[in-house]
Amino acid sequence: MLKDIENLPRGSRFSRSEILAGLRLNADGLIPAIAQQHDTGEVLMMAWMNEEALNETLATGRVCYFSRSRNRLWRKGESSGQVQQLKGLYIDCDGDTLLLRVDQTGPACHTGRSNCFFLRVDGDEVVITTNPLIDPETLYGGHGASGANAGSPKDPQ
Amino acid sequence: MLKDIENLPRGSRFSRSEILAGLRLNADGLIPAIAQQHDTGEVLMMAWMNEEALNETLATGRVCYFSRSRNRLWRKGESSGQVQQLKGLYIDCDGDTLLLRVDQTGPACHTGRSNCFFLRVDGDEVVITTNPLIDPETLYGGHGASGANAGSPKDPQ
Repeated sequence: MLKDIENLPRGSRFSRSEILAGLRLNADGLIPAIAQQHDTGEVLMMAWMNEEALNETLATGRVCYFSRSRNRLWRKGESSGQVQQLKGLYIDCDGDTLLLRVDQTGPACHTGRSNCFFLRVDGDEVVITTNPLIDPETLYGGHGASGANAGSPKDPQ
Repeated sequence: MLKDIENLPRGSRFSRSEILAGLRLNADGLIPAIAQQHDTGEVLMMAWMNEEALNETLATGRVCYFSRSRNRLWRKGESSGQVQQLKGLYIDCDGDTLLLRVDQTGPACHTGRSNCFFLRVDGDEVVITTNPLIDPETLYGGHGASGANAGSPKDPQ
């Protein structure tokens, strides 16, 4: 489907349902979704969506992923309050990756950092490049990512 | 491993080999890698790396992915000439996604567009948002993505 339209000019329009039906989900029915802050270009995180998460996100304008660790929908910010409002949803040329332009409330990362990509390779070392904006204890009340009941970093945030 | 260090401050340093050994590859030994133009913030594409592709990229400074369709290393630009020079490589908080800050020569997308995310959901429709910068026939000499021998859009570009 996408192969048939890729050489058409800017402004060409298609049925959303037909394009979404052509998405190439993986064997688990999931597709990676990159979240980018819409006004700064900062890449915030990557997570996964199933068809239901994608449809809910488009219907509500609030980003909903699928949590692989909990095997259920994960409405970003449901624990932390740090929600993502959808500004634009893009599909790549071969229909197997989504780009979400979002407006992120507070930090996107469960560590309290602005984004999840805070480890930078530097020669033979890796360096932490940022500090948290908010103590994760504040975000999760001691029951979240850094608290006594800390689970996987994949837990919904 | 990453869980143990995530609350350390900016500037904390670790052995690269130890951090890379803790990456969470998928069942096929692959990890998603987001490529972002380093100076504009444009998200160009997403592809996959295996351990060998990652090590080559870090050793040479030229981005090398793993092509799932051809089941071999894919040195970005090997057919099109549109290479990616690595400016910085980041690992996310749970070690299962990479962010590559790159300097992209020409278009990143096999369609000749600047980036792969040119399909935007717009209400009940999807619209093509950009035109190619270069005719893909020029990029591939008629034997590539849009030529008579066109293969999967996942073919190396």
